[in-house]
Amino acid sequence: MDDFDFIPSRGTVTSPKGFKASGVYCGLKRKNKDICLMLSDVSAAVAGLFTTNLVPAHCVVYNKERVKSGSARALIVNAGNANCCTGERGWRDTLDMAERTATLLGIQASEVLVLSTGVIGEYLPMEKIYTGIRKAVDALSYDGGVQAARAIMTTDTVPKHFSVEFVIDDKKCTIGVMAKGSGMIHPNLATMFAIFTTDVDIDAKLLDEAFRTAVNDSFNMMTIDGETSTNDTALIFSNGAAGHDKIVTKGEDYDKFAAALMNVAKKAAKAIAEDGEGATKFVVVTVSGAVSKEDAVKAAKAIARSLLVKTAIFGKDPNWGRVVQSAGASGARINPDEFSVEFAGVKVAEHGGAIPFNREKTVRMMDGKDVHLKIDLGVGCETASVFTCDLTYDYVTINAEYHT
Amino acid sequence: MDDFDFIPSRGTVTSPKGFKASGVYCGLKRKNKDICLMLSDVSAAVAGLFTTNLVPAHCVVYNKERVKSGSARALIVNAGNANCCTGERGWRDTLDMAERTATLLGIQASEVLVLSTGVIGEYLPMEKIYTGIRKAVDALSYDGGVQAARAIMTTDTVPKHFSVEFVIDDKKCTIGVMAKGSGMIHPNLATMFAIFTTDVDIDAKLLDEAFRTAVNDSFNMMTIDGETSTNDTALIFSNGAAGHDKIVTKGEDYDKFAAALMNVAKKAAKAIAEDGEGATKFVVVTVSGAVSKEDAVKAAKAIARSLLVKTAIFGKDPNWGRVVQSAGASGARINPDEFSVEFAGVKVAEHGGAIPFNREKTVRMMDGKDVHLKIDLGVGCETASVFTCDLTYDYVTINAEYHT
Repeated sequence: MDDFDFIPSRGTVTSPKGFKASGVYCGLKRKNKDICLMLSDVSAAVAGLFTTNLVPAHCVVYNKERVKSGSARALIVNAGNANCCTGERGWRDTLDMAERTATLLGIQASEVLVLSTGVIGEYLPMEKIYTGIRKAVDALSYDGGVQAARAIMTTDTVPKHFSVEFVIDDKKCTIGVMAKGSGMIHPNLATMFAIFTTDVDIDAKLLDEAFRTAVNDSFNMMTIDGETSTNDTALIFSNGAAGHDKIVTKGEDYDKFAAALMNVAKKAAKAIAEDGEGATKFVVVTVSGAVSKEDAVKAAKAIARSLLVKTAIFGKDPNWGRVVQSAGASGARINPDEFSVEFAGVKVAEHGGAIPFNREKTVRMMDGKDVHLKIDLGVGCETASVFTCDLTYDYVTINAEYHT
Repeated sequence: MDDFDFIPSRGTVTSPKGFKASGVYCGLKRKNKDICLMLSDVSAAVAGLFTTNLVPAHCVVYNKERVKSGSARALIVNAGNANCCTGERGWRDTLDMAERTATLLGIQASEVLVLSTGVIGEYLPMEKIYTGIRKAVDALSYDGGVQAARAIMTTDTVPKHFSVEFVIDDKKCTIGVMAKGSGMIHPNLATMFAIFTTDVDIDAKLLDEAFRTAVNDSFNMMTIDGETSTNDTALIFSNGAAGHDKIVTKGEDYDKFAAALMNVAKKAAKAIAEDGEGATKFVVVTVSGAVSKEDAVKAAKAIARSLLVKTAIFGKDPNWGRVVQSAGASGARINPDEFSVEFAGVKVAEHGGAIPFNREKTVRMMDGKDVHLKIDLGVGCETASVFTCDLTYDYVTINAEYHT
């Protein structure tokens, strides 16, 4: 994916041309911004991917329907309340958020997408939301991206936003993203939002295809705690403001866009795993030597989800037995006499058994912020990588003490 | 299952007639007994269930083959070393354990089953094992059951043994069990051993059928941390010493035996969940209102496995949103407008949403050692219950600090 020239940066959803955003406080959270608004100058092509949870929040049901049209202009987000399991009233509140936002922006309600994140099972305090929407409309600006990224946070400790630049037809193009998520995070999707904007001009179907691929290889290859939330959503808006010829077929321009999108999606996914609840380490689990891509992903996700592996990494212990146990339990084919395991660049098991290695050095290598864990299953040549983090005391603290 | 008259007790594998056992120390663990031996006076019918892990330990492969004959007399167990991922040498060591034991007992090696549990990837120190086997043979006794139960422990904090008595043909019959397991525990099977003995006289095929049913509804309905180990094994030996007419067809005697077996298997499974690594609470998750038994089990296991639910229970928080999120992510059919949730006897959600409840009382109810968590999915009438425990700081401590 790095065959193309990108200029990655810490840009935001307002880095691409023609997008305004804002982040304001309306009292849903105890402190910090909790209403985020994003507006494209013109109607944008849109694509979305949503949680597979069978108890989806109202906003998920709403957006799924809305993105079918292939276009939208604005997104209103509230943090602190998921508006999930709130019945008919919750559904009306989601529609109401879209309508209020549309009226104040002078656009159609059908052009407004809605996201909610936070506690499940409580009604939205709509008076506060109305105030928040008004403030957010007033605060909209072409450099509001950082404020917007702050306003979608819940247990996140840092705002997560990135951008990437590239050129199509001599025109500078940009993709920006803001993401949130820290716990209740597991593939398909995580408890997370990832909202992408781009000034690229692209056919809605091609946008959808590139987006699915990028999300599958980034957010869907990440796990914090094996949970799949009720509100997970990834959205992309492309408004065509960059001014190049519209991408209507696959080819070099499409490939460039898709590669840039993958690049920035992986950055955002990595940022979410790094900010995993209580995490002290960012972990990449790579499985190689699998008979199929499916098996590689299955084993990598099982290892990345294993509490025993995650606590071993927290304890800086190159405990390869736990890695093998987890791979073996995943159902992926493995040769018990041929697998090998590597922690932080040091091979600790080979041909299905222990080998001598420098334990002190390995523990030292595992002391860093990033740990790469590799296992070769010894049965084929397919590979997959999954992002995760370690499991620490602080995960327990955060989740035992974060009361409803 | 409680329609029959049982006398449950804290008996052991030597409670049934005609079984001797012993537990001795040979230096595999830093301290505490680590070699267990069990011997039936006569050849016993035998049945076994084994881990589904694709990297099974040598003893699992060995026992799987051995139990096909339907009979055995002795079982030798070592704790502290799993003899897994140890190649050809590990396989020879397993055979060697059976042969040494057989020679000293004056029986055939094919009548000896072998179990190992502990660290993965290290060779068994066979000189120590030989010493252990000699000591264990010398120590065999008709009341050695408690010592035997102690000798199979690893991170367990208490030995786990139970028995149940009932009558067939006016003859007293007994089933005894010893079990181990505390972490790396998840259905199919847990990292656990459950070894049953009985003086019931029963056809090997019927024994196998009753045993499968009992294990499926007990050990396979329990999760501590979602891990399936390489060595998990459940075995039963029935030696017919009770003296009743042999059970060769299904009927009242079979039903009585099967019910007693289920009763004692559930006790052992509950004891394992109660002793889950770092656990402060034993949790029963009951799912009702499912469209199928399969869906009920799927949802119950997902909830029992959820880190967010387990930390909430540790924090005494009736966080029903996490329960619903977990059920919804399990793939089991659920009606978002009809589900209800109950914590420790208090209904906290109904018709798919929050209801008023006495929070202080609920927190007080959740303060006990046992917590019952119920969710009705609102779509059918099937139910399932799964045993688990809470997730605490101590789980992290035990697993971050238990080094290889």
